[in-house]
Amino acid sequence: MTVAINRQWLLKQRPVGAFKDSDFEYHEAPMPTISKGQALVKTLYLSFDPTQRIWAAVDSYIPAIPLGMPMQALTISQVIESKSKKYKAGDIVSGLMTWQEYAVISEKDNSVLPPIVMPGFLDLQLTLALLLTGLTAYFGLLEVGKPRPGDTVLVSGAAGATGSMVVQIAKLKGARVVGIAGGPDKCLWLKEVAKVDEVIDYKNEDLRVRVAETCPNGIDVFFDNVGGETLDAALINLAHGARVVICGAISQYNNISSNINDRENDSYGVKATVMLISSSARMQGFLISDFKNQFNEGLMLLTKWVEEGKIVQQIDCQQGFENIPSTLQRLFLGENKGKQILKLSDPALPLNTNPLMRLAFGLMKAFVSWRKG
Amino acid sequence: MTVAINRQWLLKQRPVGAFKDSDFEYHEAPMPTISKGQALVKTLYLSFDPTQRIWAAVDSYIPAIPLGMPMQALTISQVIESKSKKYKAGDIVSGLMTWQEYAVISEKDNSVLPPIVMPGFLDLQLTLALLLTGLTAYFGLLEVGKPRPGDTVLVSGAAGATGSMVVQIAKLKGARVVGIAGGPDKCLWLKEVAKVDEVIDYKNEDLRVRVAETCPNGIDVFFDNVGGETLDAALINLAHGARVVICGAISQYNNISSNINDRENDSYGVKATVMLISSSARMQGFLISDFKNQFNEGLMLLTKWVEEGKIVQQIDCQQGFENIPSTLQRLFLGENKGKQILKLSDPALPLNTNPLMRLAFGLMKAFVSWRKG
Repeated sequence: MTVAINRQWLLKQRPVGAFKDSDFEYHEAPMPTISKGQALVKTLYLSFDPTQRIWAAVDSYIPAIPLGMPMQALTISQVIESKSKKYKAGDIVSGLMTWQEYAVISEKDNSVLPPIVMPGFLDLQLTLALLLTGLTAYFGLLEVGKPRPGDTVLVSGAAGATGSMVVQIAKLKGARVVGIAGGPDKCLWLKEVAKVDEVIDYKNEDLRVRVAETCPNGIDVFFDNVGGETLDAALINLAHGARVVICGAISQYNNISSNINDRENDSYGVKATVMLISSSARMQGFLISDFKNQFNEGLMLLTKWVEEGKIVQQIDCQQGFENIPSTLQRLFLGENKGKQILKLSDPALPLNTNPLMRLAFGLMKAFVSWRKG
Repeated sequence: MTVAINRQWLLKQRPVGAFKDSDFEYHEAPMPTISKGQALVKTLYLSFDPTQRIWAAVDSYIPAIPLGMPMQALTISQVIESKSKKYKAGDIVSGLMTWQEYAVISEKDNSVLPPIVMPGFLDLQLTLALLLTGLTAYFGLLEVGKPRPGDTVLVSGAAGATGSMVVQIAKLKGARVVGIAGGPDKCLWLKEVAKVDEVIDYKNEDLRVRVAETCPNGIDVFFDNVGGETLDAALINLAHGARVVICGAISQYNNISSNINDRENDSYGVKATVMLISSSARMQGFLISDFKNQFNEGLMLLTKWVEEGKIVQQIDCQQGFENIPSTLQRLFLGENKGKQILKLSDPALPLNTNPLMRLAFGLMKAFVSWRKG
């Protein structure tokens, strides 16, 4: 009998600048075993998110990923063996796990994003796409940006995973939406599919000129995924009382270093923060965990909007364990078309699709939709 | 009979860098005359405020001051002749006027800060000090910063006109207050008179080290009058959910130029805005005019606190028409000790001290104090 192995990608060194192949190391570990209170899960899908650049580099809202350990990522996994009352074989779980084929989860895990059991009848790819990215778009736009009907909402990285959800939710809520993206393909998608009012191709147009042109009455909400010069271009065009949602700064993440002096030297300095005064505007950051008590509500509404065709969730699904590091690099090269995920495996066991759970979920969705939708 | 003249200081050119004597020109105009609906006022006191650097340089929340016209300033003036039902001789008025001995005001003036009639029994210097600066501190801290008892409130420019009010109001509201100021005299005043908990002398100490030391649990509210490197030092030490009040950026105002390219090149770039994300923090600017419906309430509470000795309003009162331009320069050299004003004249007529108005004012003050104080 061959000894089962567990393939892993370890974080070998802290990234300096863009992620490189040499930041990761392929490793074959023995298959893990479980004790009482634990479950063995198989990784089905991995999520790729810009914030992983921060996790790999420095202590932040979570501790820096230890060197020599598997790289952390949000996953969709399936319980294949359980010695815990909380999890049973066949359950689909999602949470902050790692780049490996099998993992052990514990019922006592109280990390930032512990594994939670997901309804097994959901579309797994869609669920993974909506979980971090969709909820980030939903709460960032509606709870931090607070657009009113008729507001001009400017979104950077508008064809990206988060941005593409933001522009569509903003349109649903009656805003006039301007999207910034790089290249004609992304801009075409924004116009034709996401139905934004105006697009700016920052790779082929003068960003500052076009922001002023497309937002003649000023920007009421700027949802920023990019940072750097894009943020300055928006700050000098704010309307009175504007809200600037600092969701991400992907243009700057490659400058984040475990050496604080490198960090300082390489970061772009935002020049126009003083414009917040004359516009009586606010600029606000958030973590998705700030809204954890509203996750169910958000997930249900987003699922409903996607099912009804009101919003389109574009998913870029790569395949293959060997392609994990290069798929992460796609994000920072802007090569991903929508939410970047990677499929490792189909479910190994039939999904638990308890009809009572399906009924309860349907009722909750109808209620949330009636109240908020 | 000699022809009466009206002395003025005109804005001769847009400032580049710090204000210079040559930016202004002394001028003797003929005494103005009034028509129906107008009143002639005599300037008693001038207020000096950092925002005047912006008014002189560029179109902002008010149009740039026209070249060749008297420099604009907040004043306390007295009506000495009136052909308007709104104003009567002896009335004390305050509003956005100019560097001249006499001015004509119109009952139809609807500028940003039109002249308003002030109760004539108030202390004129204190009223001028509280009007723009005190209200800025009051609304900026309480309505934008929203400190809770026990919060750590960091204030830059803490010994300045606005900052010295902010630190005292924050103490009154039960916060732990850390003040940043330049030099031992200002720091001593903050410790001994304003009773702040900790001081940082940015001229003689390492700002970043000291901010981290004095705010070990992070900054809950940062009230920033300075901008630039001071803002970065605070951003990297925010507590979760922190509020950064962008009140001013005096370190940057001398870079504001009518030439937008100069402006860009010379401004400090804030590197740590991305910290707003991991702290779920907001950074917010405001204009005092956002709160104009609450001016009475604010002014009454501030007056009461000063009268009761709960806060000390430090006033730096210069004298003499010829010293107006150099007094403005004092602000940007950090030479002012508290609120900078200049006295031009004693009242020419007895003040209107209507006893009914005094009674009404006293009753309103008692009411506001009972509700808010």
